[in-house]
Amino acid sequence: MSLIKDGKYSPVDSGVIGELTEIMGSENVSFDPDKIRVYSRDEVGGQFWESDYLAEVVVFPRNTEQVSALMRLASRKVIAVTPRGAGTGLSGGAVPAFGGIVVSFEKMNRILECDPVNLTATVEPGVITAEICRAAMPYGLQYAGDPCSGDASFIGGNVAENAGGNKVIKYGATGANVLGLEVVLPSGEVTWFGGKRRKDVTGLDLVHLVAGSEGILCLITKVIVKLVPLPSCIVDLLVPFSTMEEAISFVPKILTESRIVPASIECMNKNSLKIVSRYIGSSLPFEEAGAHLIIQLEGNDPDSLADDYERLGQACLSSGALEVFVADNRNSRDRLWKARKSVAEAVMAFYTRYAKEDVVVPTSEVPELMREVDRICEHYGLEGVNYGHVGDGNIHVNLLMEEDRPDWKSVIESARMELYSVTARLGGTLSGEHGIGLKRKKYMTIFLDEAQIGLIRRIKKAFDPLGILNPGKIVD
Amino acid sequence: MSLIKDGKYSPVDSGVIGELTEIMGSENVSFDPDKIRVYSRDEVGGQFWESDYLAEVVVFPRNTEQVSALMRLASRKVIAVTPRGAGTGLSGGAVPAFGGIVVSFEKMNRILECDPVNLTATVEPGVITAEICRAAMPYGLQYAGDPCSGDASFIGGNVAENAGGNKVIKYGATGANVLGLEVVLPSGEVTWFGGKRRKDVTGLDLVHLVAGSEGILCLITKVIVKLVPLPSCIVDLLVPFSTMEEAISFVPKILTESRIVPASIECMNKNSLKIVSRYIGSSLPFEEAGAHLIIQLEGNDPDSLADDYERLGQACLSSGALEVFVADNRNSRDRLWKARKSVAEAVMAFYTRYAKEDVVVPTSEVPELMREVDRICEHYGLEGVNYGHVGDGNIHVNLLMEEDRPDWKSVIESARMELYSVTARLGGTLSGEHGIGLKRKKYMTIFLDEAQIGLIRRIKKAFDPLGILNPGKIVD
Repeated sequence: MSLIKDGKYSPVDSGVIGELTEIMGSENVSFDPDKIRVYSRDEVGGQFWESDYLAEVVVFPRNTEQVSALMRLASRKVIAVTPRGAGTGLSGGAVPAFGGIVVSFEKMNRILECDPVNLTATVEPGVITAEICRAAMPYGLQYAGDPCSGDASFIGGNVAENAGGNKVIKYGATGANVLGLEVVLPSGEVTWFGGKRRKDVTGLDLVHLVAGSEGILCLITKVIVKLVPLPSCIVDLLVPFSTMEEAISFVPKILTESRIVPASIECMNKNSLKIVSRYIGSSLPFEEAGAHLIIQLEGNDPDSLADDYERLGQACLSSGALEVFVADNRNSRDRLWKARKSVAEAVMAFYTRYAKEDVVVPTSEVPELMREVDRICEHYGLEGVNYGHVGDGNIHVNLLMEEDRPDWKSVIESARMELYSVTARLGGTLSGEHGIGLKRKKYMTIFLDEAQIGLIRRIKKAFDPLGILNPGKIVD
Repeated sequence: MSLIKDGKYSPVDSGVIGELTEIMGSENVSFDPDKIRVYSRDEVGGQFWESDYLAEVVVFPRNTEQVSALMRLASRKVIAVTPRGAGTGLSGGAVPAFGGIVVSFEKMNRILECDPVNLTATVEPGVITAEICRAAMPYGLQYAGDPCSGDASFIGGNVAENAGGNKVIKYGATGANVLGLEVVLPSGEVTWFGGKRRKDVTGLDLVHLVAGSEGILCLITKVIVKLVPLPSCIVDLLVPFSTMEEAISFVPKILTESRIVPASIECMNKNSLKIVSRYIGSSLPFEEAGAHLIIQLEGNDPDSLADDYERLGQACLSSGALEVFVADNRNSRDRLWKARKSVAEAVMAFYTRYAKEDVVVPTSEVPELMREVDRICEHYGLEGVNYGHVGDGNIHVNLLMEEDRPDWKSVIESARMELYSVTARLGGTLSGEHGIGLKRKKYMTIFLDEAQIGLIRRIKKAFDPLGILNPGKIVD
């Protein structure tokens, strides 16, 4: 046991390789150094890591039995195992911090069933999230867990991270859209949590404990997701406000005064709009406005949807909106969302030194958070590109350095620490949807107390007494 | 430790009494035998219990500090502690199986805040659930976790049981409506899981692990619930069908073909209607129909709501409904729901020997479940009163004995076991919303495998290493 405590797992030697090959066939076991490098990274990027974490081998199971056999082997030999979805993660959750085996789920990518009577889909973890929507569409249904990375990310990774996205305000994050999980425990045991059932209080709710557990508790081998009616008409409103404060103050009124629950309430600050128009080479109107809201409304009847957006539009204008643009066809809606969804890429394209943060605060505290971010940016000579899911109080704060400075590391780190301290003071927390993984682990104690961290450690141990599954993530 | 394993907790002696009195004042500590009897029961009723479980003392804390001090004392002395809400539970979850201290939360009954900006309410656990709705109404908001017992049950108990109710299909069960919990761990430590935040992936999701944990993990001392817009118009449809099968076959079409997400889809079989009209002395139309659906629609615009129910009503008639009654005013709606909500009481009033079950199956399997229940009833000479949340596949199956028979115990038990075996075969489970508690503990292994039960035991231990909190519930 002390072996594990010291982070010294058994190496993947030729004996282990032989067994892995026997379990999944040589075509599903790879040592190619290029492949190993690719499969040892996620989208956090290399600059973050202190050292170069690399897997010793990457495996591509094709079914649950292979995953189970793999875990029995890993348990017997005490080898570190890191599960991996599409690698679109933003926390280093899929990075093999202790070497060992990376398990890519890309070959477990079948939609096993779309069930329009029970309103569920049963899928393997390597299915690209958007594919579930495509499969459900002929039945007039959709999968509503919709991360911005839905065209690339895997559903298994979405569940592991409890991915959020644009529609949380109406439909909840990924976990709220999951009914059942087939999992492989670190011991190799295969079991089901939940099932094709809308309700279940038989024992503890392990489905939602696994959702967001970042692969430290078990491996997900099948997912049953909820499907919901696909709205027949959608409208997006683009609403510029002079200041972020005005924009955000309007948000709760949408629900209370207008009594409308939009599918999305997103925001972008002025800097977000600027860099995105530079990146995609086209701009949105009122580029000089302090903030833009994007509000998506859904309905089944065009007339009553028009009533809703007219009413909401009037309310926007009464609350200081500079204008209300209505995108009611596919083309104009796509243009709008392309801008919104390109901010993250634009940040990556133009800046090499940054803190990309994912804090969440009570919605009422977003204006104060934004003021503090401005202050922090000014103090450290940084630029703030702030955007995200304002309806949830989840703001992607990017503290950016235009030109490389020799002290970039300490400057970025100090700015980040100030951001966290402000976030904690406002009743917020470290991550709304990107996860902790390796990247944010050292900041956990700012937000969670000893009692909570102790519980997390002991729950981890309840699932994984040997500590072989995704070691080094969330807590030590 | 072996002491605990044998279920032998320390007694509540005069020393303990002295300390309890010091912690909460003598007016909040009771040994009155009548009180002890009342506070040692829930609504399962006495007939179920093999032996007479009684608390040694009942305490009524007024704040979190007192709860914390109480748990420090109980930890130090290894005394069993059983938390209790309003006692409306249906699983024996609040029954002190090992004596010791019952903690009633009835004096922690303040609504601390209604926050219309963040759309939350922060309340103490002893608040009656319906009170939260009343407090939110002036803001145009509602608390949507709505158990049938909402006028009597406490929000703390609702969270502990992850109570369901009539609106799960649209709003989810209690857990889905909870954002944060202040809890006292068995050690006496006080901490917060979640908070006034819409999203949070900082560590494991302990909020939703505690929801439905039936008081075996920690004591809940504050609850932050989500509020949602209160719809300005509501309509209930009462739809009789010739057979239960026809009624249930229609349910998924509501969501897929009509693309409507109702607030409720409830059903009552013929026997339910019969006993309820006998009990409340008034009847619903088409009493001889095989089954009635109650479908509740919400909206903000009367015209578009009328469109919805017209469309849905037509769809009902095309699917074989005998008639569609529209209850669009308070009076007719109340009459309808009075019938629906009285079934449970009617069962208790007319039958003394019964299995009151709470099984849940995939919605598609409800017709087969109902056929099997008919077969079981016929075989054992029982009556089946079946009703409940058909939109969730959660049917309250009541296997009833009209006249007392000497072999009632074995007959009821055999019928129950057949019901469970059918439920398991159909992909269903033991309880959708009533919980396991003491009542259903011995049936857990029919539905959960060793791996799952092992995990539940180890998670329990992660929270409560001494096993002092609500011992004897869910699993041994």
